[in-house]
Amino acid sequence: MSAEKIAILAGGKNLPYRLAKHCNPDLIIGFKGQAIPSLYEDYKYEEVSLGEVGKLLKLLEKNDIKKICMLGKLERPRFKDLALDMKAVTLAAKYRLDKVLQSEGDDGLLRLVKRILEDHGVAVVGAHKLCPALLLPVGSFTKVKPSKSDIQFIKRGFDVAHALGAVDVGQAVVIEEGVVLGVEAAEGTDELIKRCMTLSRGKGPILVKALKPEQDLDIDMPVFGLDTLRLMKEGGYKGFSGLAAKTLMADDQDEVLSYADQHKMFIHGS
Amino acid sequence: MSAEKIAILAGGKNLPYRLAKHCNPDLIIGFKGQAIPSLYEDYKYEEVSLGEVGKLLKLLEKNDIKKICMLGKLERPRFKDLALDMKAVTLAAKYRLDKVLQSEGDDGLLRLVKRILEDHGVAVVGAHKLCPALLLPVGSFTKVKPSKSDIQFIKRGFDVAHALGAVDVGQAVVIEEGVVLGVEAAEGTDELIKRCMTLSRGKGPILVKALKPEQDLDIDMPVFGLDTLRLMKEGGYKGFSGLAAKTLMADDQDEVLSYADQHKMFIHGS
Repeated sequence: MSAEKIAILAGGKNLPYRLAKHCNPDLIIGFKGQAIPSLYEDYKYEEVSLGEVGKLLKLLEKNDIKKICMLGKLERPRFKDLALDMKAVTLAAKYRLDKVLQSEGDDGLLRLVKRILEDHGVAVVGAHKLCPALLLPVGSFTKVKPSKSDIQFIKRGFDVAHALGAVDVGQAVVIEEGVVLGVEAAEGTDELIKRCMTLSRGKGPILVKALKPEQDLDIDMPVFGLDTLRLMKEGGYKGFSGLAAKTLMADDQDEVLSYADQHKMFIHGS
Repeated sequence: MSAEKIAILAGGKNLPYRLAKHCNPDLIIGFKGQAIPSLYEDYKYEEVSLGEVGKLLKLLEKNDIKKICMLGKLERPRFKDLALDMKAVTLAAKYRLDKVLQSEGDDGLLRLVKRILEDHGVAVVGAHKLCPALLLPVGSFTKVKPSKSDIQFIKRGFDVAHALGAVDVGQAVVIEEGVVLGVEAAEGTDELIKRCMTLSRGKGPILVKALKPEQDLDIDMPVFGLDTLRLMKEGGYKGFSGLAAKTLMADDQDEVLSYADQHKMFIHGS
């Protein structure tokens, strides 16, 4: 099994590069305009646009890839940038893309991509399986630790997040001294963090990020890193708690740690 | 029982006045700077500041009031506007106001006021008991009715709201074509409505407003009226659904109806 060839399907930012350094893939396929090609000079690198499904499948076949990991930020493309190839159009029809998008949205699109790859003999695996070193560990590895009452607030935050998850809404919650300041739905975590700055009474909000119960970690993992931490610092946040071993660290752990320590925030794996 | 004297403890806006017209109270006590005295010229009217608990209790005793309804918008006061009297300070200590505020926030304050009034022989009753005419009726009374799929979206919105309510967070949810755009926590319904405008894909969001399971309708009822409707119109909302007989109409129903009809929105009591 370990001889199976592995590819990374790379979106933007550093995360796919960090995974590559750890798992030494046989091929990296970057999404045009999103992946950063200069990062991958030491690897066999190819590019496809988001709509070139035929080209993607051919690249995988030609290189005998049996396992693929999709990782990195994807900006929602404008339709004209999709550059659908013939295979993409055929598959969109065959797999009823219209119905998937209508009823399941972006999540459904990712699940569909996974299904198509698997139907072509390529297993889709999450970074958590390939490289546990990228994951948030258990407990606090920052100098500042959450206090006993912070741990209670975090627990309450997860209770709220799980209740939301059970009805398939959002993953993130901001809590301050037991008061739930905000709950994430379609606006995304950044907007949630910013909004809760203005609602804070200055006691230090805590960001909690959980999972939806049916969230497939092979295609969609919670991510935490410097961008989020910088935003939290602006808002006087006390710290962050995510699910240990189920949250990807987007940036080098030492950098994340030193930034958190410098600004007296905690990072806690629950 | 029906001979018991009734008072309205009035906050801002029109709602206390609308209740007065329907239930003909023996006394109206307005909160200074919040209630609109000119509305109550035909009634016996007194004023107290938010902190004059002693004065309030004396007024109730002197007028032999046995039943009181608290109604109308209250702006959160600055401490210097509270004007605490001696009785207020004594009661704050006796009822451990500090602990209530710390653990229960604004909800706890309202429950405490209810307890204090009841301990002084005055029953606190909600407007829904005194005046069902102010309540949202069952079904759609606007020209535009929610479609079959809208009814499904509304049902989903209530499911989400109930899940949130079960963990004691928010009451309002905005949903568009099955996608939950936003969920209310500390930001309030107005901010939720505005935020979801920018998240809408132009299909027409629907505002759903439920109850927390432990919400005491005698002291805190969901309110819907022209202010909300105007904001919804700006954002291209399709309509509103609240719990029939458990949502107060803040404004004259004919005015609300004609505004909704003019802008092709529905109002639906679930």
